[in-house]
Amino acid sequence: MDQKLDGRTVDVRQYVQELGQAARAASRELARAATETKNRALAAMAAEIRNGAASLLEANRADAEQAQRDGRDAAFVDRLSLTRASVEQMAEGIEQVAALPDPVGEISDLVTRPSGIQVGRMRVPLGVIGIIYESRPNVTADAAALCVKAGNACILRGGSEALHSNQAIAACVRAGLKSAGLPEAAVQVVRIADRAAVGELITMTEYVDIIVPRGGKELIARLTRESRVPMIKHLDGVCHVYVDDRADPDMAVRIVDNAKTQRYGTCNTMETLLVAEGIAPKVLPRIAEIFRAKSVEMRGDEATRRLVPDVTPASEQDYYTEWLAPVASIRVVRDIDQAMAHIAKYGSQHTDAIVTDDRARAERFLREVDSSSVMVNASTRFADGYEFGLGAEIGISTDKLHARGPVGLEGLTTRKFVVMGHGEVRQ
Amino acid sequence: MDQKLDGRTVDVRQYVQELGQAARAASRELARAATETKNRALAAMAAEIRNGAASLLEANRADAEQAQRDGRDAAFVDRLSLTRASVEQMAEGIEQVAALPDPVGEISDLVTRPSGIQVGRMRVPLGVIGIIYESRPNVTADAAALCVKAGNACILRGGSEALHSNQAIAACVRAGLKSAGLPEAAVQVVRIADRAAVGELITMTEYVDIIVPRGGKELIARLTRESRVPMIKHLDGVCHVYVDDRADPDMAVRIVDNAKTQRYGTCNTMETLLVAEGIAPKVLPRIAEIFRAKSVEMRGDEATRRLVPDVTPASEQDYYTEWLAPVASIRVVRDIDQAMAHIAKYGSQHTDAIVTDDRARAERFLREVDSSSVMVNASTRFADGYEFGLGAEIGISTDKLHARGPVGLEGLTTRKFVVMGHGEVRQ
Repeated sequence: MDQKLDGRTVDVRQYVQELGQAARAASRELARAATETKNRALAAMAAEIRNGAASLLEANRADAEQAQRDGRDAAFVDRLSLTRASVEQMAEGIEQVAALPDPVGEISDLVTRPSGIQVGRMRVPLGVIGIIYESRPNVTADAAALCVKAGNACILRGGSEALHSNQAIAACVRAGLKSAGLPEAAVQVVRIADRAAVGELITMTEYVDIIVPRGGKELIARLTRESRVPMIKHLDGVCHVYVDDRADPDMAVRIVDNAKTQRYGTCNTMETLLVAEGIAPKVLPRIAEIFRAKSVEMRGDEATRRLVPDVTPASEQDYYTEWLAPVASIRVVRDIDQAMAHIAKYGSQHTDAIVTDDRARAERFLREVDSSSVMVNASTRFADGYEFGLGAEIGISTDKLHARGPVGLEGLTTRKFVVMGHGEVRQ
Repeated sequence: MDQKLDGRTVDVRQYVQELGQAARAASRELARAATETKNRALAAMAAEIRNGAASLLEANRADAEQAQRDGRDAAFVDRLSLTRASVEQMAEGIEQVAALPDPVGEISDLVTRPSGIQVGRMRVPLGVIGIIYESRPNVTADAAALCVKAGNACILRGGSEALHSNQAIAACVRAGLKSAGLPEAAVQVVRIADRAAVGELITMTEYVDIIVPRGGKELIARLTRESRVPMIKHLDGVCHVYVDDRADPDMAVRIVDNAKTQRYGTCNTMETLLVAEGIAPKVLPRIAEIFRAKSVEMRGDEATRRLVPDVTPASEQDYYTEWLAPVASIRVVRDIDQAMAHIAKYGSQHTDAIVTDDRARAERFLREVDSSSVMVNASTRFADGYEFGLGAEIGISTDKLHARGPVGLEGLTTRKFVVMGHGEVRQ
């Protein structure tokens, strides 16, 4: 488990444990920091990033050139690469987080009990957050800003291919913390690329309160198996749009088009279209025409293929698939019950939408579909922290506990009970 | 893994999987059940328990006699034994749950976004809850009532020594569900005592959404290590009272007495007393007098022993110990900072209290002590679902995610995002 760092040989496990200890200590200071102090730190981080743009870009160029030498494809190098514009976006993103209301310290649900005590619930930071992500270096700035604003310390473990970029960004972030008098250990980057460092990070429950993984399905599946620290995560986004037979056909076509084709690679993109048999002849040929024009491959059941002959036959597995590509699974269903049964069986509890003018059916869909975001007459593409008004998001959760759907500042906090008494004792 | 059940040989894993499948199906029906239907089921359960009291007591007598034959001690048999009065309490407990407001379906935080969509958060059941508990059979009725009211299905695994009692109670519960038209599989009892059944229950993530363990520390530590399903749990209750030098001495003595001696065996009992050095000479001798009179053993540091010579020297380990007995660890501290540092190091994040008349210190303590319940001028014994006004509790959580402190109906639910649109698409 030994690795080289700054020319010294270090034990990986001990190195990560030391990050954890420092983060835990810093988290106590962050938890009691005033809103104004945290905002001053965020403003200073943004300024450091703007002023340090040239050296950030230089560090990033080193990463990009290394990735090219390693034979990474163009899309990979593109995700990794920063530009003047994306550095400015990073700085603006941090300023937006500074402008959000501080969730910490708010007391809600305050009641006076018959015993005389007052009981309420105070929103407090989670503590230490471990974030494990892949190549996009802007996550370093985004995640750090959200964690600091919510009063948490964080340990960031980005992809090894972005190590120079992430360290350069983290240096700006830490300079910002320092200038506001906050501990620099509130934001630390794991500087050892060794996988064992991740293994330690996701199991040291005494120092890390939550892990937020951001990346591909394989990464998240592996972390889920191995982690002993709770996670905020989503594995899959197999999102559905169900077009009910009481839908406005024009609205249905518009929503399905947007949900599938506005962006193909995002987790809230529609992967499967369900259409009630009563309206299928009206809407499926129109949708097929759009998909054809946009080169979206269609895979459908028998009933779909009777209406749109150039649809490829869908396999059972297709309905479980998150395409993240210009491909759509299609199925004609009898009614809302069959649609909801399909979603319960094949869906991933991410985001599902119904298009209908029937109020009772809309309400049933909202209540009964067990997904983190459920929609009526809107595109699944809206499932996003900014669109929902959270201001920013650290990720999307398809878990049921703690946070479901887009996770913003509130999801990075928890609530404890507070009791204000006047000497009361229990009878 | 084969076991006998009703004279047949069954595979334990398959048996528990079947319970899980049935629970998942039932949970969908429970999730959409009207409040009135759930309350009718709860009223019928209470009536069944009252009417079936004689046969409940008979089943319980069989368990108690078996426990005696197995050489269990009197305290164990006492915890296991039901009486006419405790059966009536069970029925009343269910009626109290029926009277609580239904958390399910409530939409909060509804906002209209610039895009035109309305976004809110709907409270929904968690799904399937596995409850693993030790000998008290009344948990069967309490837990079933809370789960059903919150719209969840549950799988109950009580101690093998209470199997007949638990099955008799569950029969009443299921008769109540049936009479209200709800699926009987909403409440199932694991009828195989084999430990492998627990192993399966805590790892079948596809059928179980959350595990609530209730029992001793060893049970919970083992389940925590082995579970793949998230848990609502607490391991330890090492609760502190800190008497600040700006405390009212009479109030301090009264609260410390109550927090330690009102009941010794509960998780919210004070285990360690911290006293500021400025007030120690005034309050410690008075507290020692009370403890001496009540035969509470005192273990303290040097400074404590200078003030109260008959105190036993405390070891480092004593400060980590949840006594659950008439024993108190005592330490004299410099000030609130040293008190909070002690709590952060030795505490279990359960419940901690400060006694002080200084408002700024009270606020610091409330904000900075990272425990699930934090109190000012009140006894730690108040950390309880009934005392906090939750109506009832399924347990107390010292975890940070999802639910902290006493967990009532709200902790058995989660919130999903709901979006009401009018055909909006994402730009």
